[in-house]
Amino acid sequence: MPNLNPEDFTCPLPIMDYETIQLAHGSGGRLSAELVSRFFLPRFGNETLNRLEDQAVVDFPQGRLALTTDSFVVDPLFFPGGDIGDLAINGTVNDVCMSGATPLYLAAAFILEEGLPMATLHRVLLSMEKAAKTAGVQIVTGDTKVVNRGCCDKLFITTTGLGRVPEGVNISAANLKIGDKIILSGTIADHGMAILTSREGLSFASRVQSDTAALNGLVAQMLQVSSAIHAMRDPTRGGLATTLNEFAAASQVGIMLDETTIPVRSEVRGACEVLGIDPMYVANEGKLVAVVPAEAADRVLAAMRSHPLGREAVIIGEVVADNPGLVAMRTALGAHRIVDMPVGEQLPRIC
Amino acid sequence: MPNLNPEDFTCPLPIMDYETIQLAHGSGGRLSAELVSRFFLPRFGNETLNRLEDQAVVDFPQGRLALTTDSFVVDPLFFPGGDIGDLAINGTVNDVCMSGATPLYLAAAFILEEGLPMATLHRVLLSMEKAAKTAGVQIVTGDTKVVNRGCCDKLFITTTGLGRVPEGVNISAANLKIGDKIILSGTIADHGMAILTSREGLSFASRVQSDTAALNGLVAQMLQVSSAIHAMRDPTRGGLATTLNEFAAASQVGIMLDETTIPVRSEVRGACEVLGIDPMYVANEGKLVAVVPAEAADRVLAAMRSHPLGREAVIIGEVVADNPGLVAMRTALGAHRIVDMPVGEQLPRIC
Repeated sequence: MPNLNPEDFTCPLPIMDYETIQLAHGSGGRLSAELVSRFFLPRFGNETLNRLEDQAVVDFPQGRLALTTDSFVVDPLFFPGGDIGDLAINGTVNDVCMSGATPLYLAAAFILEEGLPMATLHRVLLSMEKAAKTAGVQIVTGDTKVVNRGCCDKLFITTTGLGRVPEGVNISAANLKIGDKIILSGTIADHGMAILTSREGLSFASRVQSDTAALNGLVAQMLQVSSAIHAMRDPTRGGLATTLNEFAAASQVGIMLDETTIPVRSEVRGACEVLGIDPMYVANEGKLVAVVPAEAADRVLAAMRSHPLGREAVIIGEVVADNPGLVAMRTALGAHRIVDMPVGEQLPRIC
Repeated sequence: MPNLNPEDFTCPLPIMDYETIQLAHGSGGRLSAELVSRFFLPRFGNETLNRLEDQAVVDFPQGRLALTTDSFVVDPLFFPGGDIGDLAINGTVNDVCMSGATPLYLAAAFILEEGLPMATLHRVLLSMEKAAKTAGVQIVTGDTKVVNRGCCDKLFITTTGLGRVPEGVNISAANLKIGDKIILSGTIADHGMAILTSREGLSFASRVQSDTAALNGLVAQMLQVSSAIHAMRDPTRGGLATTLNEFAAASQVGIMLDETTIPVRSEVRGACEVLGIDPMYVANEGKLVAVVPAEAADRVLAAMRSHPLGREAVIIGEVVADNPGLVAMRTALGAHRIVDMPVGEQLPRIC
């Protein structure tokens, strides 16, 4: 067979001259390859990802590994304070580091709707790039699927995170001990109310901003002063109330909160009142709640307050022997109320 | 505060008395918890998953780790020979083991459409359970999101796989050497044609079956006789032609195939002819193509043939110095043709 010039066999058309996503971008063929090389690699490229194998092969030091996965389906894609891109990075980084682990690698899988503007995808990827850099994590592998128009809502992203848990750290919802202090890193309900007010087009929408942020730096600072953190979580869907109920149930202890200590921004509180929503049940995307032994509480609190994302950290309550499995709250008026798990859905598609 | 009975604060209604998925099943609240405990845990439950933390913490031996992620959006959900459930397990297990790694842990993220029948979800989960058991992998963490009716097509699953790469194994598309033999594990185009014929409602549909299968057992058997496998992939989207083009491009070598050696089931060939589709470009979900040094080829081939999923394994060509970056084929008539990368989309949503 004679020698051939590969150029003779490549499509002469400017293949990427599309303004929107085509089904063929998910075909695994030449158009898929161009989407990856022109859109994804310039944003996320690194030695591992650039190999374009079907899997990333990376070094991992012996020990315990933390693995987490989350699909992001937020609507709208862009909202005050963030977008689906930084949410997908930060949300997964946070789920990794809530175990005390140092996040190392991410995987990202995209489901794109046929007809999605390339400009929209590009904007989301830029945001992911920035968030990954800020958090200090690499995207080492990924996947792209395209579904027909009307078969998904613009763009879904599933990110998976991998981290290494340091020795001596053992954080779990089942580890609460009576007498432990409950520390919240800052104001609640910012993310959920930013989504909701932007969706409803309310006039005060512009003042309510999502708190989306990667918390691994804050967690590292906390672990430096004490490895004795018993439990830790970012209270996303279902809000602070749901996370604390899960803690109380898993550890079979009671939790007593002091309502007056729980910080809520005034514009968020206003939006909650207008819409009749309890901020305790609204999603956060850049906050954590930690349960620590009383003797370590002041040390951990000081470490948190010295970090930009924990400046408003505060002790909001403690673990008690009464009413195991329940979360109770002393209200501003001095009465007690139960903070139950939510049953239904207040805010669909907030992450 | 007086002692309270937790039972007094739980919803008195039979919460799970829904025949279809509700938005509240994705709320992170009580209905989400019940979906997980009644549908997911009975299928996948293990010590790690049962903890219901936001991340799995598992032991990992020092060394190289293989990580892969894939979204599955196949339409229809159920097709001859398989469904989206076993596809999501097998596809990810295969992407892990194509690096030579032993798959250990999976993560699964579900995007469910409001109104999806519970019975459909249950059937998919049963299928995932069976596939995970067959492949010997555990699902250690997961996520569920629900989107409004019309915002996704029934059910999407993103699975992420994690495995350990044995020492001395170094498999990459960039490793092809001139003289290497190309081994295919069996017939091509079964999966893609099963999807297409079932979608089109063609009369011969029932005879064309997907080949969906986990290949980690086959790979283990191959590695036992030789760790010198240069490259290996499961030719899914884009088919065998795309995979071999990626190999040729990454290694800057030529590939010469012998068309007569490439096995295609007669019913699949018939369906391809009726629909005007080249089986070289059709997806497989239970086949692999390996590139091995000539001196190891017979040994690897014999090992493959002794495994149920490699019984029809065959050498289909070799790596050549001519035409680097191109895949060529000697046809049944003795002519030569270029097997190019596909540009567009033949078969959307086949996985």
